[in-house]
Amino acid sequence: MTPPDLAAIRQAAQRIRHYAHRTPVLTCESLNRIADARLFFKCENFQKVGAFKFRGALNAVLSLTDDEAKHGVATHSSGNHAQALALAARLRGIPAYIVMPENSSRVKREAVAGYGGRMTFCAPTLVAREHTLRRVIAETGAALVHPYNDSRVIAGQGTSAMELLEQVGDLDMVIAPVGGGGLVSGVAIAVAGVSPSTRIIGAEPEGADDALQSLRAGHIIAQLDPRTIADGLRASLGDRTFPIIHALVHDIVTVSEPAIIATMRAVWERMKIVIEPSAAVPVAALLEKKCDAEGKRIGVILSGGNVDLDRLPWMQGVGQVARSAT
Amino acid sequence: MTPPDLAAIRQAAQRIRHYAHRTPVLTCESLNRIADARLFFKCENFQKVGAFKFRGALNAVLSLTDDEAKHGVATHSSGNHAQALALAARLRGIPAYIVMPENSSRVKREAVAGYGGRMTFCAPTLVAREHTLRRVIAETGAALVHPYNDSRVIAGQGTSAMELLEQVGDLDMVIAPVGGGGLVSGVAIAVAGVSPSTRIIGAEPEGADDALQSLRAGHIIAQLDPRTIADGLRASLGDRTFPIIHALVHDIVTVSEPAIIATMRAVWERMKIVIEPSAAVPVAALLEKKCDAEGKRIGVILSGGNVDLDRLPWMQGVGQVARSAT
Repeated sequence: MTPPDLAAIRQAAQRIRHYAHRTPVLTCESLNRIADARLFFKCENFQKVGAFKFRGALNAVLSLTDDEAKHGVATHSSGNHAQALALAARLRGIPAYIVMPENSSRVKREAVAGYGGRMTFCAPTLVAREHTLRRVIAETGAALVHPYNDSRVIAGQGTSAMELLEQVGDLDMVIAPVGGGGLVSGVAIAVAGVSPSTRIIGAEPEGADDALQSLRAGHIIAQLDPRTIADGLRASLGDRTFPIIHALVHDIVTVSEPAIIATMRAVWERMKIVIEPSAAVPVAALLEKKCDAEGKRIGVILSGGNVDLDRLPWMQGVGQVARSAT
Repeated sequence: MTPPDLAAIRQAAQRIRHYAHRTPVLTCESLNRIADARLFFKCENFQKVGAFKFRGALNAVLSLTDDEAKHGVATHSSGNHAQALALAARLRGIPAYIVMPENSSRVKREAVAGYGGRMTFCAPTLVAREHTLRRVIAETGAALVHPYNDSRVIAGQGTSAMELLEQVGDLDMVIAPVGGGGLVSGVAIAVAGVSPSTRIIGAEPEGADDALQSLRAGHIIAQLDPRTIADGLRASLGDRTFPIIHALVHDIVTVSEPAIIATMRAVWERMKIVIEPSAAVPVAALLEKKCDAEGKRIGVILSGGNVDLDRLPWMQGVGQVARSAT
């Protein structure tokens, strides 16, 4: 699999355009005032399955030859990628095998089941997940679609930034959250290709700052003990995402847990949109003036909006519980 | 004050266009499937101050002559109209005197104060509010801007539906919530003028169904004991809104409290937007198939998105508390 380039992102955009939403870009004067910048929010929380993940999963599924696709696709994920792959596979009419930890919440199980995903449960460890996934693939012949360490997935995620630049024109900076790095890698390729003078910033929680550490070290440092409510950002970089980030991302900034929660709430209150903690991370970096954004035009990828409305992080006790679960 | 007509709404649209947002229209496939219709949501929750109320208040404030405006404006409201009038007055550089019941929540007081409104508190009864407002007006010389029983306010609210028709073209039906009737009156004038074949439906809570009762009786029946979480819809029709509704609104439908709460939550979960209970009322009518919408193109005015994020109605006990407060 060759690393994705701008052409791959353009092809991905063509491939997914009849199925994925061209999500709107919103602005908010009161957040502009706090950040002292002009912010353009790319609302991937309005994307199908409620997150940008649908772009990458769909591009991967639609990139398969008929022969590769005939036994379906498989992944391990308890989050948005699981739902995204299930829906993408259903659109192509093939099965999606999803390996999930047995402690996944009811909400997440029902979401995957609702899109027709076939679930296999395993112990909640990375070793068990990978072992179980290998077994499922051996038994079914399904094609692996990794949540982020996959060039087709990275290219799909990059379509979000390409659209954003089409929608709002020149930007001084684009900022996206960093977990496994699939989103920020695709964003970086799109932005560097279309608008080379635009700075590309990754934002991550202080409690899961493996991207920052990896860039400083010059090699991947695994995230062994992530401590953040931003459950989409607990993964480690992969060998396909790290080199792209190393080459194209100008800076990685980190934010605290209280800042993530306060920012998430501020976005709900001021913009009247539902975003998940991971999506609040780049916004928090801007509101806390972590990235030299003053006076500039900034694109922000709001990565998703899937939250349990019974357990919001500003409710008493919820933050603690969320932080201890991975 | 003459009753507003289509020309008044067009003038209002011109008057407010540099200050009010042209709010986006969103769609949602999963809600379309439940309603068996094509729904176009006019997102007034994204309007300034988080509600359509800014349109009417601003049109009223900008309609005043310099002489009328010189001593400021006044109203009684604890809700979105208070914030809307405060912001509109600030934009014109005149004071806004807001009479609020002394039991208004901290959130609402802070919101009005944040827009520079000058608050006077009174006992939480309609008699006390009207008495206090008369006193404030006598003392200050401010111009009254009623929350809904005012032709300039009605014309301003109607701009929401005029925009909606411009944005999405022909609609078979437009549905809006009914409280005091300012929104639905303005919407009805705009829709009847621009698209005479479009049906105009008002939606209200079963526990505050004074519009339905008033239309059946042929005269205004006051809402003496509203019992609904939709705090924007507890008012009675006024002598300026009732005749417009009587003449132009085709039907009033009602929905239960559980339906309002479940619909509010469904909109948050599926559309990833924050709406207040009042805004859920017309959506609930569609999801519960109360208005012969099947297969049709329906415009829905989402009236606002101001909620206390610490006290959501699906949290245990909150619904009870909210229902007992007026």
